[in-house]
Amino acid sequence: MNLHPRWVVGFVDGEGCFHIGISKNPTMKSGIQVLPEFVITQHKRDVQVLYALKAFFKCGIVRHEKPNILCFRVRERKALETIIIPFFEKHKLKTRKRQDFLKFRRVLKMMSEGLHLSTEGIEEIRILRESPSTKEI
Amino acid sequence: MNLHPRWVVGFVDGEGCFHIGISKNPTMKSGIQVLPEFVITQHKRDVQVLYALKAFFKCGIVRHEKPNILCFRVRERKALETIIIPFFEKHKLKTRKRQDFLKFRRVLKMMSEGLHLSTEGIEEIRILRESPSTKEI
Repeated sequence: MNLHPRWVVGFVDGEGCFHIGISKNPTMKSGIQVLPEFVITQHKRDVQVLYALKAFFKCGIVRHEKPNILCFRVRERKALETIIIPFFEKHKLKTRKRQDFLKFRRVLKMMSEGLHLSTEGIEEIRILRESPSTKEI
Repeated sequence: MNLHPRWVVGFVDGEGCFHIGISKNPTMKSGIQVLPEFVITQHKRDVQVLYALKAFFKCGIVRHEKPNILCFRVRERKALETIIIPFFEKHKLKTRKRQDFLKFRRVLKMMSEGLHLSTEGIEEIRILRESPSTKEI
């Protein structure tokens, strides 16, 4: 199945999620881990679309979330920075999911500056994540 | 907001619904009404996308479903037959939603032959609707 970038943007506008996880992790110095991930979830009947997205982006994994639910997920920072973000910079999302993407991009920028390693930086990321921003960041 | 057909297909693969309603209606001779409708539902924050879809397809309406939820909906038979169906024949859906579309198209064909006006025809439509068909119809 060959995917066209415009189809991918439309599908992500519908089904995609730019998630910024913030959770406790005792192995981190701050005790908190910031985990940005790009995720698309589907019922198992459409697993072939998830594999097509994996092939399209040339990164990420397809895995089970629940017995009948699978997802295509990109967590690797380098892939997010060099593939996912440039793609959605070039091909703009049309729904308010673009706001989620812009926040996601900002968080990855903050992480590249090491902000996620300090308590203050994590708080800054948390505030950004919760903000109902409607402007370009 | 200008939409590209490929974006529309991707978005419908994610968010669209080809619904075949079958409900009691005492004003119909058979007592049953068959109501096919093409629907895309969104949170109110993305209402502009629904209006863009209405402008794109040049048919249908945007209306509230719940306080924060709106939908773009096409029920008019002529619009379904002359706009929606030809569009998705030309621009193929990539998920299993294509199966829903093919069943939907078949039901509209049956309706154009008047099958929805008899109890037997309605039963045929109901069986088709429930079928897990995976082949081109």
